[in-house]
Amino acid sequence: MGSLQQREENGEASVVTEETAISISPGSIHGFESLHRLLEANLKPQIFQEVSRLLLGLNCGRPLERICLPEAATSLSAENNFDLQAFSFHADKELLRQQRVVRVGLIQNSIALPTTAHFADQKNAIMQKVKPMIDAAGASGVNIICLQEAWMMPFAFCTREKKWCEFAEPVDGEATQFLQELARKYNMVIVNPILERDVSHGDTIWNTAVVIGNHGNIIGIHRKNHIPRVGDFNESTYYMEGNTGHPVFETAYGKIAINICYGRHHPLNWLAFGLNGAEIVFNPSATVGELSEPMWPIEARNAAIANSYYVGSINRVGTEVFPNPFTSGDGKPQHSDFGHFYGSSHFSAPDASCTPSLSRHRDGLMVSDMDLNLCRQLKDKWGFRMTARYELYADLFSKYLKPDFTPQVIVDPALQKKI
Amino acid sequence: MGSLQQREENGEASVVTEETAISISPGSIHGFESLHRLLEANLKPQIFQEVSRLLLGLNCGRPLERICLPEAATSLSAENNFDLQAFSFHADKELLRQQRVVRVGLIQNSIALPTTAHFADQKNAIMQKVKPMIDAAGASGVNIICLQEAWMMPFAFCTREKKWCEFAEPVDGEATQFLQELARKYNMVIVNPILERDVSHGDTIWNTAVVIGNHGNIIGIHRKNHIPRVGDFNESTYYMEGNTGHPVFETAYGKIAINICYGRHHPLNWLAFGLNGAEIVFNPSATVGELSEPMWPIEARNAAIANSYYVGSINRVGTEVFPNPFTSGDGKPQHSDFGHFYGSSHFSAPDASCTPSLSRHRDGLMVSDMDLNLCRQLKDKWGFRMTARYELYADLFSKYLKPDFTPQVIVDPALQKKI
Repeated sequence: MGSLQQREENGEASVVTEETAISISPGSIHGFESLHRLLEANLKPQIFQEVSRLLLGLNCGRPLERICLPEAATSLSAENNFDLQAFSFHADKELLRQQRVVRVGLIQNSIALPTTAHFADQKNAIMQKVKPMIDAAGASGVNIICLQEAWMMPFAFCTREKKWCEFAEPVDGEATQFLQELARKYNMVIVNPILERDVSHGDTIWNTAVVIGNHGNIIGIHRKNHIPRVGDFNESTYYMEGNTGHPVFETAYGKIAINICYGRHHPLNWLAFGLNGAEIVFNPSATVGELSEPMWPIEARNAAIANSYYVGSINRVGTEVFPNPFTSGDGKPQHSDFGHFYGSSHFSAPDASCTPSLSRHRDGLMVSDMDLNLCRQLKDKWGFRMTARYELYADLFSKYLKPDFTPQVIVDPALQKKI
Repeated sequence: MGSLQQREENGEASVVTEETAISISPGSIHGFESLHRLLEANLKPQIFQEVSRLLLGLNCGRPLERICLPEAATSLSAENNFDLQAFSFHADKELLRQQRVVRVGLIQNSIALPTTAHFADQKNAIMQKVKPMIDAAGASGVNIICLQEAWMMPFAFCTREKKWCEFAEPVDGEATQFLQELARKYNMVIVNPILERDVSHGDTIWNTAVVIGNHGNIIGIHRKNHIPRVGDFNESTYYMEGNTGHPVFETAYGKIAINICYGRHHPLNWLAFGLNGAEIVFNPSATVGELSEPMWPIEARNAAIANSYYVGSINRVGTEVFPNPFTSGDGKPQHSDFGHFYGSSHFSAPDASCTPSLSRHRDGLMVSDMDLNLCRQLKDKWGFRMTARYELYADLFSKYLKPDFTPQVIVDPALQKKI
């Protein structure tokens, strides 16, 4: 069978069983599909079960619940070599409210053509690549789906070249029109994160999520609130901090919000969507291994716990190589690629549980059933809103914003004597 | 050899090696000392290395760095059967600032006598049990150490009986005096989380951390800001939300703060200590398995990442049984114990790395070297403060606090028609 990496390269299916347990050489640290599968393949079942309990937050002895998807979906996954996983979160039944189970999807994808191809061809090829994944979601009865950040283009911000702005499009542009048709066809809410060109405001560029209703209508937009200036993420060269606040979109299937990429490092951004009533917050992202992989499983789960809502985390996948070499502000020589986008899309729930992650190497569709009633159940159980003392923090922030803010510091008198 | 649990019960040392790899029956899920050791004992070294990289956030191919402690410390650990682990975090050297490496310790402990013993004997026995761990820290050159929440008493709040208030003591009471002597002896800053009796304010009870300077002086106090009302954590029956704000204590070894127990679920509480300049925030806790174990490895690491400081997480250990049975508000019959306090104390760093955890069953001392310069290095690298847009949130909070707050919700017009 060879290593998982080899099997992937051969396009073989990637179900890892005890017999195909892989061995990893230190040089091939990207050889496995996900931490979950690596552990599953290398631990005895009983130990794996306990490790899963701790890592996936499966308390009360509850096992990880997989959903069986229809053959129409699994065959699309096999034909198009995308990872397909489906799970269900647990919630208690209530006496006074019906269950509100929605089926939610996340799509991660690599680009489809070299970045040297004609821009129109690149964009079109990505759309054709993503379509079978949306079709699989449609065949699976997914109600709400979210794509990755700026999914319709390579993540070219590392280059600092302005020509990539040509990929930007208006809110009702090509990508939106493509997805509106699929939204109507599958009666599905689709979150469409694009690079936006705001023609009515002097061609301003934004990083935007367009929320498309299940009738194909545009419900509204959210523009990325927090912009990175780190490593190759030269996004502040291209667009500014969003001006749309923290909107929650009330769709046919629940109240959703979008925290785009770098916003996941800001607990306040997550909190604001919570205060506005979000039940599911998507985090469409594009992030690379060396920089952020240790943070990836932490921040989304923390947000789900602290704010009593579900989180869907999406990261693009693959390595993107650009025509002109660039430096990365790290003293290293010029190079042409952004590093490895490690995929690993997954869901987190307000009860601190989470799903395993999609592949670190391949396109993928993650599906999960979630009862939105769980959000309020967790609010009632843990009382985080009730105990939050927002008045303390409103007061602190108003002081902190002043130029002469003095931090609350108590100095050891013994130190003061020395001074 | 038998299972780890058996070996622990026999008082045997618990270093798990390849040869002693344990097998777990589904019924004995508490049989292993820590996730890290369970994986180490059951994975091939190369795979364990990669799993560690992901779980401990060891990026850039950097291995986990262990510190070799002096024999005086290791022999105290062996004689008194407490877990002893020591690690070092990595930080870059700077050109204009000297390194500021401090050695920091965390102590977790079970109670020492049955809860039926005379209160004075119980308290005294805990102090005598904790002393060798502080001695080991002293022998190891630890600069700052923190004990667990209300370390000088059983965590009796599950009972709702007011007699346990007798354990409360003034800021300069018995526990503080005991630790002041050790602080002087070892030139060590000691954080002393007690149940406080505020005699000058009508015998009010608080949940308080007393910060003792390295000369044995009391630098100041912090009172727990957020109080749980969940499960057996009936703490709001005993004391109210703290009135000391979010103080940072400038000690001889760096700027520290204390986020007591349930405050770790509140990102705003973590944030406030950060805005006031904390470099290390301790989270002395008491929490049990079924309720919070899946959250435990998430929240502290997220706080360290989001606020660019170190976090020291401490949880008490063992099962505490009380004289009178009580119910838990979960419909189950009365019972006499609080469940298993799972220990698992550990450190998190601002670069998203963390140490393995102390034992889930035994007392323990965790030691870590940390260069406080890393905090500013991460602020410069990631720019979370710079990009935080606090003015947005100050404005949101001021609106949210008003009774007529209207969340920012964009309703799908198709839904409105239906209504």
